[in-house]
Amino acid sequence: MVGKEGKEGKEGKEGKASKLSIQLKTPKGTRDCEFLEARWSDKIFKEITEVFKRHGGTQLDTPVFELKEILAGKYGEDSRLIYDLADQGGEDCALRYDLTVPLARWLAMNSSVQHLKRYHIAKVYRRDQPASRMREFYQCDFDIAGTYDPMIPDAEILRIIVEVFEALGLRDDITIKLNHRKILDGLFAVAGVPEDKTRSISSAVDKLDKLPWAEVKAEMEEKGLAPEVADKIGEYVKLNGGKDLLETLKADAHICANEDVSKGLEQMELLFRYTDAFNVTDKISFDLSLARGLDYYTGVIFEIVTALSPPDDFAPSKKSSYKPKKSGDNDEDRSDDPTLGVGSIAAGGRYDNLVNMFSKKRQIPCVGISFGVDRIFTIMKQRLEKQQKEGTAVVRSSEVDVFIMAFGGKGFTGLLPERMAVANQLWEAGIKAEFAPSVKPRLPQQFKLAEAGGVPLAVILGEDELAAGNVKLKILGLPEGHPDKEGSLVSRDNLPAEIKKLLATLPL
Amino acid sequence: MVGKEGKEGKEGKEGKASKLSIQLKTPKGTRDCEFLEARWSDKIFKEITEVFKRHGGTQLDTPVFELKEILAGKYGEDSRLIYDLADQGGEDCALRYDLTVPLARWLAMNSSVQHLKRYHIAKVYRRDQPASRMREFYQCDFDIAGTYDPMIPDAEILRIIVEVFEALGLRDDITIKLNHRKILDGLFAVAGVPEDKTRSISSAVDKLDKLPWAEVKAEMEEKGLAPEVADKIGEYVKLNGGKDLLETLKADAHICANEDVSKGLEQMELLFRYTDAFNVTDKISFDLSLARGLDYYTGVIFEIVTALSPPDDFAPSKKSSYKPKKSGDNDEDRSDDPTLGVGSIAAGGRYDNLVNMFSKKRQIPCVGISFGVDRIFTIMKQRLEKQQKEGTAVVRSSEVDVFIMAFGGKGFTGLLPERMAVANQLWEAGIKAEFAPSVKPRLPQQFKLAEAGGVPLAVILGEDELAAGNVKLKILGLPEGHPDKEGSLVSRDNLPAEIKKLLATLPL
Repeated sequence: MVGKEGKEGKEGKEGKASKLSIQLKTPKGTRDCEFLEARWSDKIFKEITEVFKRHGGTQLDTPVFELKEILAGKYGEDSRLIYDLADQGGEDCALRYDLTVPLARWLAMNSSVQHLKRYHIAKVYRRDQPASRMREFYQCDFDIAGTYDPMIPDAEILRIIVEVFEALGLRDDITIKLNHRKILDGLFAVAGVPEDKTRSISSAVDKLDKLPWAEVKAEMEEKGLAPEVADKIGEYVKLNGGKDLLETLKADAHICANEDVSKGLEQMELLFRYTDAFNVTDKISFDLSLARGLDYYTGVIFEIVTALSPPDDFAPSKKSSYKPKKSGDNDEDRSDDPTLGVGSIAAGGRYDNLVNMFSKKRQIPCVGISFGVDRIFTIMKQRLEKQQKEGTAVVRSSEVDVFIMAFGGKGFTGLLPERMAVANQLWEAGIKAEFAPSVKPRLPQQFKLAEAGGVPLAVILGEDELAAGNVKLKILGLPEGHPDKEGSLVSRDNLPAEIKKLLATLPL
Repeated sequence: MVGKEGKEGKEGKEGKASKLSIQLKTPKGTRDCEFLEARWSDKIFKEITEVFKRHGGTQLDTPVFELKEILAGKYGEDSRLIYDLADQGGEDCALRYDLTVPLARWLAMNSSVQHLKRYHIAKVYRRDQPASRMREFYQCDFDIAGTYDPMIPDAEILRIIVEVFEALGLRDDITIKLNHRKILDGLFAVAGVPEDKTRSISSAVDKLDKLPWAEVKAEMEEKGLAPEVADKIGEYVKLNGGKDLLETLKADAHICANEDVSKGLEQMELLFRYTDAFNVTDKISFDLSLARGLDYYTGVIFEIVTALSPPDDFAPSKKSSYKPKKSGDNDEDRSDDPTLGVGSIAAGGRYDNLVNMFSKKRQIPCVGISFGVDRIFTIMKQRLEKQQKEGTAVVRSSEVDVFIMAFGGKGFTGLLPERMAVANQLWEAGIKAEFAPSVKPRLPQQFKLAEAGGVPLAVILGEDELAAGNVKLKILGLPEGHPDKEGSLVSRDNLPAEIKKLLATLPL
């Protein structure tokens, strides 16, 4: 139950005006998630969890902070975004930056575990600078660890991605951008990138979804690449498509002479065979410009982008709808790409050596996906608000089904113990019920409370009816003249059963 | 899916043995919650959430850290247990210590909210010293904010406490220790405690569940109380009982001359009337020794204790079962009290002035309860493990219902695309399914994987059967000679429906 009165604004206005020196706000980059939004988030988590469980996922819940040395050296340039805990004596700790490194730490600690499908839904922490960026946000991760025949778990992860967005009603709105680190690294080698520059050039390529080619090329030259080497890279990273692109690359003898490229292409071919069996190949765009920032990926990498306009919170200066480019598309200006400043709504890949960074004796290959739920949420929210307005979906902030009221003439006592006893009877039957927390509430006040909570049913107590063992049960909000408007008398004993019968007929 | 092989131990043994300098462990006072435990925790959270929703609760999710000044001055001596974030530029922040202060901060910020029933299930952080104490643990909070007629929300909180433990199957094992700050403060005044010592003497009394009276008395004298004043307090704080104690105190003209005492007793009388209507008076022990450490309580206070033996993690040196003392019981040795070193499994009270500490213009009374889920969990775990052993409850670490296998003679291809396609068919029907992630798995290996996951059903593909559009469906783990042991042939098209029918007959 939430009751607001008057027209006073929220958002800490009073706090700011207060003479106390305390600033009434949440820390920068964090927010309170309230009521209806929390219920919507729960709905999304539940849908995603269902998919994870359907694929044999089990839950692993790790602490919100880790020893600092566990996180050290895992995030490249972004390590500066890690939140440290203060030194108050004892161990040096830091808030988790993602859910992947804690999983790898766990796998290193539990060396008897040879196979694992685990999911984890929790908040992660990044001291990101742009004002609009959240510094605390949810991730939903699913990872498959263990040695299997090639590309089988990779394909299942892609299937899970599609199933999650299917469950959220967004299947038609997403594209999985897919690439392979081996292909990318091999192409760099063919183009003439020195081996020690592979990762830094890769991170330049990764900016192609935010910057035009000219700027990315400039960065490559700054990083010490000859312009003609950069141009060679440019020829390839502009390519994207589906299985057709795979065929084009396989026919390119020059690049296929490189062992990494040919190995990567072979794996991609196998992967497409499996995504065919899983019926998700249509959602994949093989995109050579996808590089992913993190160092630890070793195989397939993917990012999920959406054609839906990004929410204001994450909006770039320009908005437009995203169209996956066709193979060979030469458009260098990507400023109309909604991923500009928005980022992907899910991302992941294969990381076969991360666990080994923690324990030299332990080698357990992994592949996983991380859903950025807050971004998905803002997209879903627009949709849910629209449905709410249209009346095609009803999401109430509380879930109370019955409001228990009392009325009476002169000498009316308020029937509080009686209302409490009826509430008790309903609670014991598992029915969600409330009553006005006053000794002698007026009837209009009780209706107002029920209405404010969107409660669908009322049980009304009157002294005469109670004496005869009856109460009135009615549906709230029916129009005048509706045959059920007046409700009906029900015996106290049958009340829970009658309520359950009535609730089953309502569109809740 | 979790697969462990060999007999190698866990708990970071390999990590410790590793030559890397990285310590493979979670920070002190934190732990990983794994698989089966995570599922059990989820079950408990779900039960508790159901009760909260039944009473009109809505969810409010606040950030894991708050501005430091929000937490300052709220926790008395325990403020030293707050985890600070490091100063990395920007605001001074600290991890939340409980879920109550963030709620009060939110209520101060949102001044248009006049009534609220909110719940919040999340981890809180305390730099507690004893080796066995957790520093990161879950709390489940339910609070009612707003001005109502006296004691109605207080009684509903007590009802919620009983309902939660009822839902967890622990109703018979708990006692709600209940007291009223006004009565306690008034008694102190009557005994001759100077007003400025009220809170510090109160915190001494609060130790009575851990220390014998002699030690508590010594602390009072150290805090500057005359021995005869302490003895007078001693006479009262040894009292506990039910409504009978209320009558005893009401008949004591000496203490009832104090306005706080008489006001407090009047409220307690009203409260007992309402708990009668809610049918929970039998669970209440009115206990004058209950004081609660936190400064901010202003009315009723309560702590829930259990007769169940505490788990080893929280065990004191001596264990025995707790018997609520009868009114007038003179036993000063409380060393056999399981709350010694264990603490309560839930606690709460009324705090009418906390929001006002944030915003002078805002006065919104609150009452709430906080469930210590980790402690409840360790009790439930013993019970669930026992049921699991007895076979009266089955909780599998993963929820997979179907394992898809293939077999064949000479030239067996492994039927991987076919197994994938069947998995896909089942996933699309919402059925939880897995298959061996190998191109050509041997049949015994597939049965082993299914068995390890406790999967109840198998779908077995053979080339001849597939060619005829059929697969075999069988229940796993049936004894030899059982009429259904061999399973039956089912058409591919009917497979999802047949599986759902079969699952409905199994005790899962």
